Amino acid sequence: MQLAILLFDGFTTLDAVGPYETLSRLPGAEAVFVGERTGPHRNELGSLGLIADAALGEVTAPDILVVPGGPGQTAQMADGPLHEWIRAVDAGTSWTTSVCTGSLILGAAGLLKGRRATSHWLALDQLPALGAEPTGERVVFDGKYVTAAGVSSGIDMGLMLAGRIAGDAVAQGIQLGIEYDPQPPYDAGSPDKAPAEITATLREKSRFLLTRQGWQPSGGGAES
Amino acid sequence: MQLAILLFDGFTTLDAVGPYETLSRLPGAEAVFVGERTGPHRNELGSLGLIADAALGEVTAPDILVVPGGPGQTAQMADGPLHEWIRAVDAGTSWTTSVCTGSLILGAAGLLKGRRATSHWLALDQLPALGAEPTGERVVFDGKYVTAAGVSSGIDMGLMLAGRIAGDAVAQGIQLGIEYDPQPPYDAGSPDKAPAEITATLREKSRFLLTRQGWQPSGGGAES
Repeated sequence: MQLAILLFDGFTTLDAVGPYETLSRLPGAEAVFVGERTGPHRNELGSLGLIADAALGEVTAPDILVVPGGPGQTAQMADGPLHEWIRAVDAGTSWTTSVCTGSLILGAAGLLKGRRATSHWLALDQLPALGAEPTGERVVFDGKYVTAAGVSSGIDMGLMLAGRIAGDAVAQGIQLGIEYDPQPPYDAGSPDKAPAEITATLREKSRFLLTRQGWQPSGGGAES
Repeated sequence: MQLAILLFDGFTTLDAVGPYETLSRLPGAEAVFVGERTGPHRNELGSLGLIADAALGEVTAPDILVVPGGPGQTAQMADGPLHEWIRAVDAGTSWTTSVCTGSLILGAAGLLKGRRATSHWLALDQLPALGAEPTGERVVFDGKYVTAAGVSSGIDMGLMLAGRIAGDAVAQGIQLGIEYDPQPPYDAGSPDKAPAEITATLREKSRFLLTRQGWQPSGGGAES
């Protein structure tokens, strides 16, 4: 069972690592990080490089595809070799997945038309223009398409998917192995739970970032 | 404010990425991945390489040190250049931290003597031999020494530490930015919550792995 995780410059690290750390522990899983070029890809902050061991053309039949998001997502929206590859491998996947603004890439590649999906809360309002129907759920299953909300939600997605693929006991073993017994010190992890002024600040900052990048957000914006 | 994250071959990815993804978002933070050599370090599974941009000697005064764990921890227990570096930078840190079996490395370097600490649940019983007092808490603060339990606990640690350093509002903003509103599909993330047979299976598997590596666990064992 091959798990292919896409890398591009400006990805958000945890978007990729959450699904990886869970799904790569499935029995028989073989994970490969794949990029338009092999070698290091820098994350959004520039302070961390992850290595893509395979180029797109070297990964032709993954069982699971994971597309992360992050500010670099904005440069992955145009049709071209990446979208062609995503569509080609999607034709054979058992599961095509995304975390955070990775769903915008899946959507731009044409895979979310008429599907329920999610994204980072700051990017949800960009889904309809790509033909998808945004939901407020943290992890959304629509057939074989699984999209997760912002950044850390990929851990929950990975465990849910592990359960579907290998059964509850295996998924629980993975959860126990990574000691995922979350105890966040605050209850501020979603826009309706965080203090209103903090939600407003992030929304404003996101709008500024998108404007600077030349984006025309329809309302909210994308930040990961 | 410099955040130094140690890499070594065989580390567990999320051990390093959890604190990184939270603490590197602090205002003024500058994160650097550091290793005994610069360049790629492969994780425990071998399928992912993270790049250390700095060698030990190039990072002399970090404000925060993060030591991850993982199966490769067993090769980091002998005194030598790594321990010397850890002790030297610890003399100047504001916070010296670990995730998972990273606490065994801190302990082996002599930094946890007489201190309360934690580790991956399978490694807790190795702490007393290193002079530390194990606790059942997910994140343990003892002065400037902060140790977190297995793998995913580094996210909680990062947010707690972010709150201590920059205040609750900043930490809540980071939590909202990474949309950390955990919704695990199971409640199996700690040995007392998981089904007993799953806990027993992991304990047995861990013992096997340690024996194979030539380790002499005092009872449980280390797996990350």
